[in-house]
Amino acid sequence: MTSPNDQPRAGVVGTGLIGGSIGLALRAKGWHVTGRDRDEARAARALELGALDAVGDDPEADVTFVATPVGVMAASVREALDAGRGWVTDVGSVKAALAGEVDDPRFVGGHPMAGSEQEGVDGADAALFEGATWVLTPTASTDPEGYARVRSVVSSLGADVVAVSPERHDALVALVSHVPHLTAATLMGLAAEGAEEHATLLRLAAGGFRDMTRIAAGHPGIWPDICAENRGAIVAVLDQLIEALGQMRRTVDAADRDALLDWLERARVARLNLPSRAAARPENLAEVRVPVPDRPGVLAEITTLAGELAVNIHDLEIAHSAEGDRGVLLLVIDAESGDLVRGALLARGFRPSVQALG
Amino acid sequence: MTSPNDQPRAGVVGTGLIGGSIGLALRAKGWHVTGRDRDEARAARALELGALDAVGDDPEADVTFVATPVGVMAASVREALDAGRGWVTDVGSVKAALAGEVDDPRFVGGHPMAGSEQEGVDGADAALFEGATWVLTPTASTDPEGYARVRSVVSSLGADVVAVSPERHDALVALVSHVPHLTAATLMGLAAEGAEEHATLLRLAAGGFRDMTRIAAGHPGIWPDICAENRGAIVAVLDQLIEALGQMRRTVDAADRDALLDWLERARVARLNLPSRAAARPENLAEVRVPVPDRPGVLAEITTLAGELAVNIHDLEIAHSAEGDRGVLLLVIDAESGDLVRGALLARGFRPSVQALG
Repeated sequence: MTSPNDQPRAGVVGTGLIGGSIGLALRAKGWHVTGRDRDEARAARALELGALDAVGDDPEADVTFVATPVGVMAASVREALDAGRGWVTDVGSVKAALAGEVDDPRFVGGHPMAGSEQEGVDGADAALFEGATWVLTPTASTDPEGYARVRSVVSSLGADVVAVSPERHDALVALVSHVPHLTAATLMGLAAEGAEEHATLLRLAAGGFRDMTRIAAGHPGIWPDICAENRGAIVAVLDQLIEALGQMRRTVDAADRDALLDWLERARVARLNLPSRAAARPENLAEVRVPVPDRPGVLAEITTLAGELAVNIHDLEIAHSAEGDRGVLLLVIDAESGDLVRGALLARGFRPSVQALG
Repeated sequence: MTSPNDQPRAGVVGTGLIGGSIGLALRAKGWHVTGRDRDEARAARALELGALDAVGDDPEADVTFVATPVGVMAASVREALDAGRGWVTDVGSVKAALAGEVDDPRFVGGHPMAGSEQEGVDGADAALFEGATWVLTPTASTDPEGYARVRSVVSSLGADVVAVSPERHDALVALVSHVPHLTAATLMGLAAEGAEEHATLLRLAAGGFRDMTRIAAGHPGIWPDICAENRGAIVAVLDQLIEALGQMRRTVDAADRDALLDWLERARVARLNLPSRAAARPENLAEVRVPVPDRPGVLAEITTLAGELAVNIHDLEIAHSAEGDRGVLLLVIDAESGDLVRGALLARGFRPSVQALG
């Protein structure tokens, strides 16, 4: 870890689009970033593009970001932990299997919900995470200090941090990412089959179809790993989708106007309520102080509780007490969520205090 | 019909987003546009916004565009025909049922594949159709003269015209418009159900999910009519989609990497090949001259044949012979499609000649 006068040091393993963007963003914030990639040319390119200060491993790293493909993530994370390269976090799209394989207090699972139609380090962008949701998946074994450090760094890159359990994360991304991707590819595939006999079809595809199938243009290489790692959740959501489409089919076939309108109206309201990525930071903030025992799991419990309540944590800090066995957790949240959080924490046996901020 | 010195006159029935945009675009091209709406305030607003010269009906109209909701389209079209307001075309999203109800040589079915997230006449835009595909659905009973006139007007608004049969149109839009819309709403509905117990879910929705569900934010009001009018084609495509998603589910469940990669790669190639809305007009054009008997169905046969071949008709004209019982159809197409079109026309018994332009 670094003294206040030192330049903070980070490691990046895997310098593709996400790893490269992390490197650029960290360097813009004053970090010294060392990174590598199993493809040496890619690491050299990351250095050339200014995403790294140096190619290699940094034994002095305070935080190491592992941004390798999902299939080799567990091995990459374990290697970084074994080499003692500080707190280790990853950016993989599936979290539960990894959490099961890596049980180390220095590890904090993560998943930035940001991507780009660009691929590879040449598409890297220091601003990729600004306003994006960055999921962290602390578990009972995660060291609160490491979680707070990773959270603070990720948040400094402009991301909104949400904490959920690894299993919950996987169920959620199956619903809002993995199955939508497979569905877009399926729709595109059906249209392409139809187009083989009639190319006019694709000329009739207006904006809505283009929007819906845009993600199908991405490279498929990452998907076999994602589908293998998150198989259970994906199959469960596909079953739900097939069931719901069957219901839609019956509704259309029966010309049941009211049921159709009702279903579409609910979808419309839900879509309009989808939070905007560029949501402005609210002006009214409140600080919640929670005395907590210095034991494993408390941090994960409180942050995932905030996640369940859909409360956005703008800032988080852990203040250790002089005695060392207790500390105070400081959370900065929207003032309007103060009572909600206080109530939830009281219900879980904590003794929080809430104070409005400036 | 108008003499060369007169201002051409058009009618618009239904002055919402599409009708208003047609009015604006026609007036920008020098037309005198008279229109009305069953909602008088909406017609007054269209007048105020410059989409109309006058509110009412124009018995002198050369072409009348009917842009009322799908459910009342047939009645609106018949009324315009009965009142003798020139060639009549419509903009409805479903074509076969209407073609079955309106069997008049002066009617040319149409469907501009353009929309907007805006709704109502306040979202009207003279440029809405520039580069958009505008489907026309001539039938054996359509008067070639009327078809050529409507085609020419629509093309002058910047649209690329594609001719297909009404039944073919309905099958195609079920695949690239109606079922994608219902699927977007279904995905959004599933996510919203999940969100009721966990609002964090929607914060995890990244760009891909936003793109996929954007169309679900549209007003549902038009969909019961569309689903009723195009029920057969929609149900058939929903069955295909459910079957394909079931296959996807089995592939994921079996962790069949090769099958998954293959499926996603085909979808990727198809998506990348989706023609761009802003495709530039090619520089190498050719003129095809086809002597045709002056009998019903020839125009529909040739234009839908071009549609089946995916050949874009840039311009079309009908030159009548002095004798009056034969004419020459002039088609302007991409030079590179010349042989394809010539071969197809020869195969159908026509005697075309092809000449490079410019």
